[in-house]
Amino acid sequence: MEKVKVGILGATGMVGQRFVQLLVDHPWFEITEVAASERSAGRSYGEVMQDRWKVEREIPPEVARLEVKECVPELQCRLVFSALDAKVAGTIEEEFAKAGYVVSSNARNHRMDPDVPLLVPEVNPDHTEIIPQQKKRWPKGGYIVTNPNCSTIGLVMALAPLHRRFGLKRVMVTTLQALSGAGYPGVASLDILDNVIPFISGEEAKVETEPLKILGRLEGGRFVPAEIAISASCTRVNVRDGHLESVSVELQRQATEEELIQTWQEYNPLADLGLPSAPEHPLVYRPEPDRPQPLKDRDEGRGMTCTIGRLRPCQVLHYKFFLLSHNTIRGAAGAAILNAEYLLKKGYL
Amino acid sequence: MEKVKVGILGATGMVGQRFVQLLVDHPWFEITEVAASERSAGRSYGEVMQDRWKVEREIPPEVARLEVKECVPELQCRLVFSALDAKVAGTIEEEFAKAGYVVSSNARNHRMDPDVPLLVPEVNPDHTEIIPQQKKRWPKGGYIVTNPNCSTIGLVMALAPLHRRFGLKRVMVTTLQALSGAGYPGVASLDILDNVIPFISGEEAKVETEPLKILGRLEGGRFVPAEIAISASCTRVNVRDGHLESVSVELQRQATEEELIQTWQEYNPLADLGLPSAPEHPLVYRPEPDRPQPLKDRDEGRGMTCTIGRLRPCQVLHYKFFLLSHNTIRGAAGAAILNAEYLLKKGYL
Amino acid sequence: MEKVKVGILGATGMVGQRFVQLLVDHPWFEITEVAASERSAGRSYGEVMQDRWKVEREIPPEVARLEVKECVPELQCRLVFSALDAKVAGTIEEEFAKAGYVVSSNARNHRMDPDVPLLVPEVNPDHTEIIPQQKKRWPKGGYIVTNPNCSTIGLVMALAPLHRRFGLKRVMVTTLQALSGAGYPGVASLDILDNVIPFISGEEAKVETEPLKILGRLEGGRFVPAEIAISASCTRVNVRDGHLESVSVELQRQATEEELIQTWQEYNPLADLGLPSAPEHPLVYRPEPDRPQPLKDRDEGRGMTCTIGRLRPCQVLHYKFFLLSHNTIRGAAGAAILNAEYLLKKGYL
Amino acid sequence: MEKVKVGILGATGMVGQRFVQLLVDHPWFEITEVAASERSAGRSYGEVMQDRWKVEREIPPEVARLEVKECVPELQCRLVFSALDAKVAGTIEEEFAKAGYVVSSNARNHRMDPDVPLLVPEVNPDHTEIIPQQKKRWPKGGYIVTNPNCSTIGLVMALAPLHRRFGLKRVMVTTLQALSGAGYPGVASLDILDNVIPFISGEEAKVETEPLKILGRLEGGRFVPAEIAISASCTRVNVRDGHLESVSVELQRQATEEELIQTWQEYNPLADLGLPSAPEHPLVYRPEPDRPQPLKDRDEGRGMTCTIGRLRPCQVLHYKFFLLSHNTIRGAAGAAILNAEYLLKKGYL
Repeated sequence: MEKVKVGILGATGMVGQRFVQLLVDHPWFEITEVAASERSAGRSYGEVMQDRWKVEREIPPEVARLEVKECVPELQCRLVFSALDAKVAGTIEEEFAKAGYVVSSNARNHRMDPDVPLLVPEVNPDHTEIIPQQKKRWPKGGYIVTNPNCSTIGLVMALAPLHRRFGLKRVMVTTLQALSGAGYPGVASLDILDNVIPFISGEEAKVETEPLKILGRLEGGRFVPAEIAISASCTRVNVRDGHLESVSVELQRQATEEELIQTWQEYNPLADLGLPSAPEHPLVYRPEPDRPQPLKDRDEGRGMTCTIGRLRPCQVLHYKFFLLSHNTIRGAAGAAILNAEYLLKKGYL
Repeated sequence: MEKVKVGILGATGMVGQRFVQLLVDHPWFEITEVAASERSAGRSYGEVMQDRWKVEREIPPEVARLEVKECVPELQCRLVFSALDAKVAGTIEEEFAKAGYVVSSNARNHRMDPDVPLLVPEVNPDHTEIIPQQKKRWPKGGYIVTNPNCSTIGLVMALAPLHRRFGLKRVMVTTLQALSGAGYPGVASLDILDNVIPFISGEEAKVETEPLKILGRLEGGRFVPAEIAISASCTRVNVRDGHLESVSVELQRQATEEELIQTWQEYNPLADLGLPSAPEHPLVYRPEPDRPQPLKDRDEGRGMTCTIGRLRPCQVLHYKFFLLSHNTIRGAAGAAILNAEYLLKKGYL
Repeated sequence: MEKVKVGILGATGMVGQRFVQLLVDHPWFEITEVAASERSAGRSYGEVMQDRWKVEREIPPEVARLEVKECVPELQCRLVFSALDAKVAGTIEEEFAKAGYVVSSNARNHRMDPDVPLLVPEVNPDHTEIIPQQKKRWPKGGYIVTNPNCSTIGLVMALAPLHRRFGLKRVMVTTLQALSGAGYPGVASLDILDNVIPFISGEEAKVETEPLKILGRLEGGRFVPAEIAISASCTRVNVRDGHLESVSVELQRQATEEELIQTWQEYNPLADLGLPSAPEHPLVYRPEPDRPQPLKDRDEGRGMTCTIGRLRPCQVLHYKFFLLSHNTIRGAAGAAILNAEYLLKKGYL
Repeated sequence: MEKVKVGILGATGMVGQRFVQLLVDHPWFEITEVAASERSAGRSYGEVMQDRWKVEREIPPEVARLEVKECVPELQCRLVFSALDAKVAGTIEEEFAKAGYVVSSNARNHRMDPDVPLLVPEVNPDHTEIIPQQKKRWPKGGYIVTNPNCSTIGLVMALAPLHRRFGLKRVMVTTLQALSGAGYPGVASLDILDNVIPFISGEEAKVETEPLKILGRLEGGRFVPAEIAISASCTRVNVRDGHLESVSVELQRQATEEELIQTWQEYNPLADLGLPSAPEHPLVYRPEPDRPQPLKDRDEGRGMTCTIGRLRPCQVLHYKFFLLSHNTIRGAAGAAILNAEYLLKKGYL
């Protein structure tokens, strides 16, 4: 199979770097274009990134030699991954969709659009059925698909199978989020050394609303949000990668701890699709008393698994547990790539 | 006024060191005895502590020259502060009470005893009225008073005025606790660098039960616990001092945000007693969007104030907010000293 | 005595904040002006600093209410402290000197000027004798005095008494420098968590040259640099405040370890001047095997003392030791204030 | 080729875990035995290590199921790797050699023995020629080979080619060492958060003496140490893995910077031997102004490469540079494994 040519919009930021890293040896996709802001354009990616490459290992040489282009829809590729900043993502992604590109975006701008899927292939694959409707907006066959916020995705992965089987009524979550979620330079070292910052701008609203769309139904051409009350409190901790979340849930139907754990362990709706980025187990439950931990569990499933632990009764709602997911892999670049793999497999590309 | 002679049991640990530091220039108390385990006994405190002194500033010379005694009730003082490890505190504290000493203890062992006050002078000063009853156990006039766990105290200080005025039904809390709470050597650096540990042994149970006794009533010679459902999830973060807590509350009576903030700001029941360790404001509400923070707020009120911030509606319960208190000052040594000051002021010494 | 009115140029940066903090209760000086870049000017200092105040404790209210001015020589004061960035300090400081202000500067721009003292009052107070010569450049009685780089000053304080008594030939130093030395936002947390950066732009050159001027002689109206070979390697470590330095020295005359320690301990040339910022002991030698440490020793002498430890023979030069000094107090704001105190005491103001 | 059966002595510590991790998929060796202290013996490795496994990824299942044995020479293997603590390594290793085992040890005890090679295969492979002489002590064909201290090895790798080509006279080094070098639990988090510790017990002596044996010659059946003066200052920094060293050297013959870099880049004496653990490049020189860094360079060559950077003239000796090597891979387990591979290749097994 010839590889699909792909471009990366916003290729120089933290998430853009993760796209490069995760796509460089991808069996289905080939990076042919890297695009960024005007001031980076015209130079090679290697030159532009010399002091800015922050992910593990070196810049792949085949990408380092690509010329950085501007983010205008004249790129030699069929599919673009968007790691653009929310300040510019809205318009640029629309321009690409309009010009016929398929856009798999990590930006927040179009997530809640009524005809744009907020997609997690394990959770709401049927939401892709809105795509034909969206395409009417873009005459040349392009369209936009989005993935959720880095704190939403781990939460929604752990909640989805519980919601399907037992029904969720109320969810309370406090997040302990990693530094890489703030991009680079992001959080100043003087602000976080020996400290926690109990505030991330706009984050709590995303965690409280995005899961409702994802866990909702697509009915008659529109998204009906799930009727779950979610309350989120978000903090930043001195950890490089991996968002940890302290979660309590109230269920509609009674369930035992064993049933919950079994439900998580059996959950693997993509098992038969052979998507390259899909982890062997989307959810892993750890029985140890002190897991999950960012340092130990963030790379589970090459960063695509959500790890759960410490399930126990809650005095206020029904159960509580901790979960952890890698915020720049499963929570950003890896999510958008998995979405594109799913679209390709299902014939949307 | 002649100063009251006091001893410190467990003077070599982290909390013991805080006792030394906070008592050394105390206007009412004078350290005459430092006691610890057998293997430290017989040498000077300065010698024993040479490599173990972990709090700010140097070992005070007047304490450094004291001989470390064993923890047997033959100390030259009227009052002992107990920073003993829970493994030994139970028996030793009873021996001191039996021998006629007043014991102000930070250990958990006797906190839930039916005739021992779990005292926070701002919150439940009337619980001292159980003391005469307890004294019947100890013929020579001694007795035991305890202060709560380092995670409980900030929580209970913030909750108490809300409970008094609006009634509390349900409370959900996730803690982000500092390293010093684990004592020394405590948490290994390899375990916490670039990490969070979502587990502290026994902690969640304490946070879920101690507030019920503290916020409860003393009626007919016994403690009637408050009827509040509390659910706690406890984590350890890479911060030296200062426990941060993410809290949601459900109230019995409706209240506006302004009423809650006003209730906190006006709360100062010890204002007129002149207790040396009582902070000018036991509760401070910060209006900034990103406070309280351990680094910036832990030393408020010389470590005796609980700082609150980010009050906002909760989608699941009624309101949510963050609070922070210094875990080895207000959460341990400072609490026990304030208790002793209150006892002295009220004639219990 | 009426207090001398002082202004702070660059009052909003990290060093500017330290000036505010250290000057607010100063017995000789009174902050009447705070100046910064155009975009801060016109608002109150409290408003401008709301999210930018990074030093311990709150913004002092009497400074918070001052209006931030632009850095033009129309300030109501006699003396200005300069915490300006090197990009603009050169010209602005000259404009103030020209307009008749005394400028005590922490910026690097004029440090090596042939008629500007690079002053450490304990080390080269006689270098102030160049001031009359410099004043010829500035007709209205103004002049500029500078203090050394934050890594230079601890080094030169420890070396000065050795140089005076035994003569220095060669010095090798590797620094482990704190984050606050890079200003705010400065070092990104993603760059320094679990890391060391073995490079600080321009730093090694300063450490290799500034001590030669400071330890040199003022002869016939010009500075004759000391003939010492200094080699410096500079690194950035994940520490908030306090530069640690690993130093080896070769002496001209033989000396025992005891003589070196005694020389340091006896060194206190400012003892009789009563300067408010002068520490009781400019040099403290710690006998413990593992000192000095940034966390434990940076606040010695209210941040104005240089702490030395681990003196031992060196296999390559003669002796080696570690030293530590607080980089934004003794290494910046505190140094400039001590310089101004010395100038006032000696009649230069 | 049938794999050689190997055992690991001290398999439960930090270095022991690295042995397990590095040997589990080894093409030449097969772990058949894991041994530790008496109190671990008798249970499975997986059970013993449940809370103690600290390296990346999970405990390999094939090792987890091995029974932990005591460290007595009754293990089913030909070769043992020793990660024993120095307190017990001396005697135990001798017992194994005596019983006919080949011992590749990371412990310090026998490093300086007159008939034991202190081996770095890239540097002093000829030192293995002492083995026949050593074997005379151990009648059954066993013998001991050691690798150097974790701070020595990076230094000696960078120095060796310079010494061979230009001759070394004097070397000055300050180390910034990682936490994992202290084992587990090792450094307490309260000691290192926001701090540097300028002392590691016994470390400076090792760095000053071990390189002399390694860079020395084996002549007439005895080791003649190299005549180089080395001075070391050792510090502990808040970094997980990777020892950074600031080095200055004085050469016997003149050399340009280009010659030094070329000498390092061309150095690859093991290139043709096909040893599985030998990195493609034992030395990598990075041209960037701010490298090497622990976070970015420690995993170079799967942790077996020494990375060098910032070569520049030294004002005191001739040149200075920084180097970095992974302290528990190249500096411990990986070094001992490479030694064993070399011995096997050369017929010593």
